[in-house]
Amino acid sequence: MNFIKAVESAWQENNTLLCIGLDPDLSRIPVHLRSLETPLFEFNKAIVDATADLVCSFKPQIAYYSASQAERDLELTIEYIHHNYPGIPVILDAKRGDIGSTAEKYAQEVFDRYKADAVTVNPYMGADTLQPFLGRKGNGVIVLCRTSNPGARDIQDLDSGGKKIYQIVASKAVNQWNYNGNVLLVVGATFPTELKEIRSIVGDMPFLVPGIGAQGGDAESAVTNGKTRDGTGMIISSSRGIIYASGEDDFAEAARNAATSLRDEINRYR
Amino acid sequence: MNFIKAVESAWQENNTLLCIGLDPDLSRIPVHLRSLETPLFEFNKAIVDATADLVCSFKPQIAYYSASQAERDLELTIEYIHHNYPGIPVILDAKRGDIGSTAEKYAQEVFDRYKADAVTVNPYMGADTLQPFLGRKGNGVIVLCRTSNPGARDIQDLDSGGKKIYQIVASKAVNQWNYNGNVLLVVGATFPTELKEIRSIVGDMPFLVPGIGAQGGDAESAVTNGKTRDGTGMIISSSRGIIYASGEDDFAEAARNAATSLRDEINRYR
Repeated sequence: MNFIKAVESAWQENNTLLCIGLDPDLSRIPVHLRSLETPLFEFNKAIVDATADLVCSFKPQIAYYSASQAERDLELTIEYIHHNYPGIPVILDAKRGDIGSTAEKYAQEVFDRYKADAVTVNPYMGADTLQPFLGRKGNGVIVLCRTSNPGARDIQDLDSGGKKIYQIVASKAVNQWNYNGNVLLVVGATFPTELKEIRSIVGDMPFLVPGIGAQGGDAESAVTNGKTRDGTGMIISSSRGIIYASGEDDFAEAARNAATSLRDEINRYR
Repeated sequence: MNFIKAVESAWQENNTLLCIGLDPDLSRIPVHLRSLETPLFEFNKAIVDATADLVCSFKPQIAYYSASQAERDLELTIEYIHHNYPGIPVILDAKRGDIGSTAEKYAQEVFDRYKADAVTVNPYMGADTLQPFLGRKGNGVIVLCRTSNPGARDIQDLDSGGKKIYQIVASKAVNQWNYNGNVLLVVGATFPTELKEIRSIVGDMPFLVPGIGAQGGDAESAVTNGKTRDGTGMIISSSRGIIYASGEDDFAEAARNAATSLRDEINRYR
């Protein structure tokens, strides 16, 4: 699978920019699932089955699995999506970043072990630490640029020679790191002005956009400021607002309703 | 265990600043270990037993385990060190960094699941992403400041208002993030001038110093520029140069010899 091509197809075929974050927490999933052998997988499976026609990708966050020895649940989840919904790519949200020899191991973890189609990476350590990911031509490499949290200001907003650090990251992404055409950027929905600025730097490079819902970002301003000329270019991620729409037995149906409503709201502004 | 106090005791009692990186690769460990049920653990166990009196800490890099479904080897390694060498703290090199709710999961992974005593973290996403780690008072939080790889220049060396980004990270670490007295910094041995500058910003805050050996850093210039007034303040990490000193059956003895020699070389310049 070529990640970016798969996302582009899913944007069109499912008429959606929505991505669902699969961040299951044993203490928040319905009680009847908790005693199963792979409870997080069973939860994800129900969410995926209920929403796969509404999304352009799924995005498990690895910490939700590794915190509780649930690597197997993560493997099963990605396998399940690939097998049953081959058109829907999987982003492993892991925010990796390390020196070359270690980054190569992280690339093996993400792409060979878990068979994810894309990964989020941290640019603080520089170009050589991104190379083992960038070299995987078919896979997406989603570089943190301007994140959705309040502390994003601490480093990313510092000014260097008239440009903010996140603007420099955006320039490097488009001019230096995208030699295999597989780079995307993380740009938070909570900062619409920055979304617009970064869009003007990188042309049609796709964004992964977290921060709508629980983090307070607003769909209208995110889409208006972040979309490309053809009304795509964004993978808009929501997790808690969808997967925990209900904590009861109707959780999958409630997730479908929440996902439908967010997809439609996003589509109004494309 | 209080991580920083444990390191200080180990500096004195073992008369060493050396830290051994436990980054075992199935394709590089001796052949007779490869078919065991937990080969990476068996390899580490032999290295740990051969070197525990020569180090101030051990530092497994998590990617070497997660790339090959070897989480159990990592759990066993940390358990083994704690049980058999209770004075020697364990740093989990994981370079984590994410929004608060996810960072809390990463803190659970590192401190509750693996029971590491310290962790490396990435500051790009800002203060709120460090808080779940900083709140673990007894544990060490080792913030990437100026790393040892060539690409460190790309972001960390950018100038903002007359200061480099890594100098700003160092200032924030000492002035804002160290409220529980558990912050350390990663400063690479490959850039001695930067070691000296950062030492002058942060006083006696300890450094984790990678980059000696395979990455080309030199012990004399690293120690001379990075040490505190009492000749400590550094956890100098070496991995490949020690653990692969021999690829044969004598690997543990060879590791001991390499570790002794590096410890002694470091001690000459303290």
